[in-house]
Amino acid sequence: MNSFTPQKHNIKAALHKLMPADSVCRIEKGMVRMMQNTNRISIKKDNTPIYDIVLAEDYNPFLKELEALKLAGRKVCIVTDSNVSKLHLNNLLEIVKDYARVVETFTFPAGEDSKTLATVEFLYEKLIQSNFDRNDMLFALGGGVVGDLTGYAAATYLRGIAFLQIPTTLLACVDSSIGGKTGVDFKAYKNMVGAFHQPRLVYINLAHLNTLDDRQFCNGMGEVIKHGLIRDIEYYEWLKGNREAILKRDPQALKEMVLRSCKIKQMVVEIDPTEKGVRALLNFGHTLGHSIERLMEFKLLHGECVSIGMVSAAYLSQVHGYLNKDDVTEITETLSSFNLPVSLTDTDIPSEEFLRVCFHDKKVDGNLIKFILLKEKGNAVIDTSVSREDILETVNCIKKTKLSEAICEN
Amino acid sequence: MNSFTPQKHNIKAALHKLMPADSVCRIEKGMVRMMQNTNRISIKKDNTPIYDIVLAEDYNPFLKELEALKLAGRKVCIVTDSNVSKLHLNNLLEIVKDYARVVETFTFPAGEDSKTLATVEFLYEKLIQSNFDRNDMLFALGGGVVGDLTGYAAATYLRGIAFLQIPTTLLACVDSSIGGKTGVDFKAYKNMVGAFHQPRLVYINLAHLNTLDDRQFCNGMGEVIKHGLIRDIEYYEWLKGNREAILKRDPQALKEMVLRSCKIKQMVVEIDPTEKGVRALLNFGHTLGHSIERLMEFKLLHGECVSIGMVSAAYLSQVHGYLNKDDVTEITETLSSFNLPVSLTDTDIPSEEFLRVCFHDKKVDGNLIKFILLKEKGNAVIDTSVSREDILETVNCIKKTKLSEAICEN
Repeated sequence: MNSFTPQKHNIKAALHKLMPADSVCRIEKGMVRMMQNTNRISIKKDNTPIYDIVLAEDYNPFLKELEALKLAGRKVCIVTDSNVSKLHLNNLLEIVKDYARVVETFTFPAGEDSKTLATVEFLYEKLIQSNFDRNDMLFALGGGVVGDLTGYAAATYLRGIAFLQIPTTLLACVDSSIGGKTGVDFKAYKNMVGAFHQPRLVYINLAHLNTLDDRQFCNGMGEVIKHGLIRDIEYYEWLKGNREAILKRDPQALKEMVLRSCKIKQMVVEIDPTEKGVRALLNFGHTLGHSIERLMEFKLLHGECVSIGMVSAAYLSQVHGYLNKDDVTEITETLSSFNLPVSLTDTDIPSEEFLRVCFHDKKVDGNLIKFILLKEKGNAVIDTSVSREDILETVNCIKKTKLSEAICEN
Repeated sequence: MNSFTPQKHNIKAALHKLMPADSVCRIEKGMVRMMQNTNRISIKKDNTPIYDIVLAEDYNPFLKELEALKLAGRKVCIVTDSNVSKLHLNNLLEIVKDYARVVETFTFPAGEDSKTLATVEFLYEKLIQSNFDRNDMLFALGGGVVGDLTGYAAATYLRGIAFLQIPTTLLACVDSSIGGKTGVDFKAYKNMVGAFHQPRLVYINLAHLNTLDDRQFCNGMGEVIKHGLIRDIEYYEWLKGNREAILKRDPQALKEMVLRSCKIKQMVVEIDPTEKGVRALLNFGHTLGHSIERLMEFKLLHGECVSIGMVSAAYLSQVHGYLNKDDVTEITETLSSFNLPVSLTDTDIPSEEFLRVCFHDKKVDGNLIKFILLKEKGNAVIDTSVSREDILETVNCIKKTKLSEAICEN
C-alpha cells in the first residue's frame, strides 16, 4: 500500500516515528485527521523544532511573535510586489515599525517575470544601502514569487540572514512558504537557481485570502487537491464534500483546509528536508506542469498548470495499470469543479516540445525522468519507468478538448 | 590566557573536547603539533566526518579518490581561470575523463574582477546547456577566486550540487578551500553574496605550488603567518626558523607548513562552521585588510592587504594594552621578511575612507565593529570596543613609510 517504487520509502512508518502520542495528528490508512483546533504547527529537523507555522484570522497574534523575534536592535526589510503592496503593505508596516529599529520596504513588479537574479540584485543593493548586516531580517509579504525570491536573497546575502514568510495567496499558504525551498528562475528555467533556507516563522493571516480574485484562489486549490491525492484520501473526499463552503471562502472551512494541507506538507518536508527521496511526491503534477507553465510563457497560473499536470499523471497512472478509467475521470471532474483547467486546447506548440522541456527540468535524474504516479487515490509513488512515448501520448491527449473522452478512447 | 572577550569562547577546552586520544594532534599551550606524518585531515560536523583534505605531491593518490566518488554515471565540469588553465587544466582533464561519464570545462578570465554574479551566470548557462542535474559535480581548479565562485555556483545551481576543491595557490590550500565559505563580490563589496556549502573533498597537489611566482607564493604566507599569530606561537616560531626553506619551497617544509595550517583552520571551522563565534578569529587582519583591498582596487593581493591589516591589528592590540611595542615591531619585521608589505605608502586616499569601508564590511555587528586583536602572540581575541578614533589613528600610521618608527612615536 505505502511502497515507494523504486526508493521503497515508507511514509506511514516514518510518520508514526515522527509523531509523538500527544501530537495533534492521528495517522490511519495514510490519512491525517486534525484532532485539535490548533493554530500552530512546529516544523522540526532531527526532532528539534526549527520554526513554526502560525495560523490566525488577523494580525493580532503576530504581535507576540514579533516580540519573540527580539527586533529591538534590528533592521527589517519587508519585501513585496506591486499588487500586494497596495493591499497589505501599509498595515504590516505600521505593525512592524513598533518593534524593529528600522523598517525598510522593497516592492518589485508583480508576476513571474520578476522572479529573476536581476530583481534579487536590486534587493541586495537596497540592503547594502541600508547597511543591513547579519543580524537584520527580511519579511516576505506576498505569494510564491515574493516568498521564493525573498528567501533566496536571505539565503545568499552575507551568506545567509533570517527571513519570515507572510504568505498572502492560498498557494503560498499551503505550499511555497513551507519547507525552505527558495529560488529564482533563470533564462526561463523555473527555480533553476536556488538554495534551501528555512524561514524563522511562517505567519498565515487567513484574512488575506479574502482579497484574492477567484482565479487566484482556485490556483491555490490545485496544490490543496494535490495534497489529498498524494497522501490522504479522506482529506480529498472532505474537499469534495466541502466544495461550496471552500469556494465561498467560509472562514471555518478555509481554516481547516489550510491547516490540513500545511500538516501534510510539514510531514513530508520533515522526513526529507532537501528532497533526496519522499519529498519528490509533492511534485505530483509538476513535471509536465512546469513544462506547460514555461511553454505557455506563464499565461496559465502555477496551480492551473499543475492541475493539467495532475490529469496527465493520473492518465499515466492508468497506463501503468494503477488507476482505472473511472478514477481518472473522477479526478479530472473534481479539478474541473474547482474551476481548474484539465486540458490544453488552443495551443499549436508541438507535443515534442513539452517532452524536451521535461527532460531539461531539474527533476531529471541522470538520463531517467522521475515521475510521480498515483498507485491509488491518496497514495503517490515515485516512478522512473515512464517512457518518452507514454509522455508524448499523454501530451497529445491533454491537447484534445474533451480529455476524459480522449482517455477513454485509448 | 584563552579567554575570548567578550564572547568567552575557550578554544583550548573546545579542542580538547573535539580531539580523541588517537588524534593526530596534541594540544599544548594553544599549540598544534603534528604527531604523525599524515596526508589526510578529516573535517567533521557534530562528530560526523563530512569531507577530507588530502595532501599529496602529485595526482597519483587522486585516482583512488576519484574512484570513491563514483563518477561513472555522472558529469563533471572543471571550473578554472585563464592563468591556471594554461598550467594545469589538460593534465587534470586527462585524469578525470577516465572516471566521469562526461567532463566539461569552464574557464573565466583570471582575477578578482571576474568574481561576480555575471561570471556565475555564465557558468549556470554552461551547466544548463550541458544538461547538468543534481547528481553532477563541479571541480574548482585554481586559487581563492576560482574556489569561492565555483563553490557558490555549486551551492545555488538546482539548490545545491556537489563540488571538489583542487587549490593551486598557497592561499587557497591553507585558507579559502577549507570550511565551506563560498561567494562572490557585489558592486565592489567583497564576498557580499554567498553561501555556506561544504566541498566533497579538498585535494591539495603540492606540486602546483612550484608554478606560483614569488609574489603569489608570499601572498599565501600572509594567511599562514596569521594562523601562527592567532592560535599557535610554536608554529609561528617554526615559520620564522624555517623561513629560508619555505621561501625556497623545500618540499618537506612546504608539506609540514600546509598540514599545520590546514589543521588550525580545520579546528576553528569545526567548532564554528557558520561563523557565529570563534571562527571570527580567522578574520585577524581582515577588517582593515578588506578595506585596503577594496580601496586599492585590488592592486594589492589579498594576503598583502591582510599583512598590512595584521600590522594594524597588532598596533591596535598595543593601544589596548595587550602587546608591547617590541611585539608589534617583531610581527612587522616577520611579515616583512616574507616579502609582505607592512605599510600603505603612495596613496592619497583619505584615512576616513578606510574607516567608512570598514563599517560597510560584513563583520559589522549592529553598530559595533568586531575587531580581532592579539592578547599575546599566538592568542587572538574578539573585541568590539575598538573606537573609530583608534582605527583612524592606525590608518594614519600605516600610511607613513617607516611604520615601526611611526608606532614608536605614539
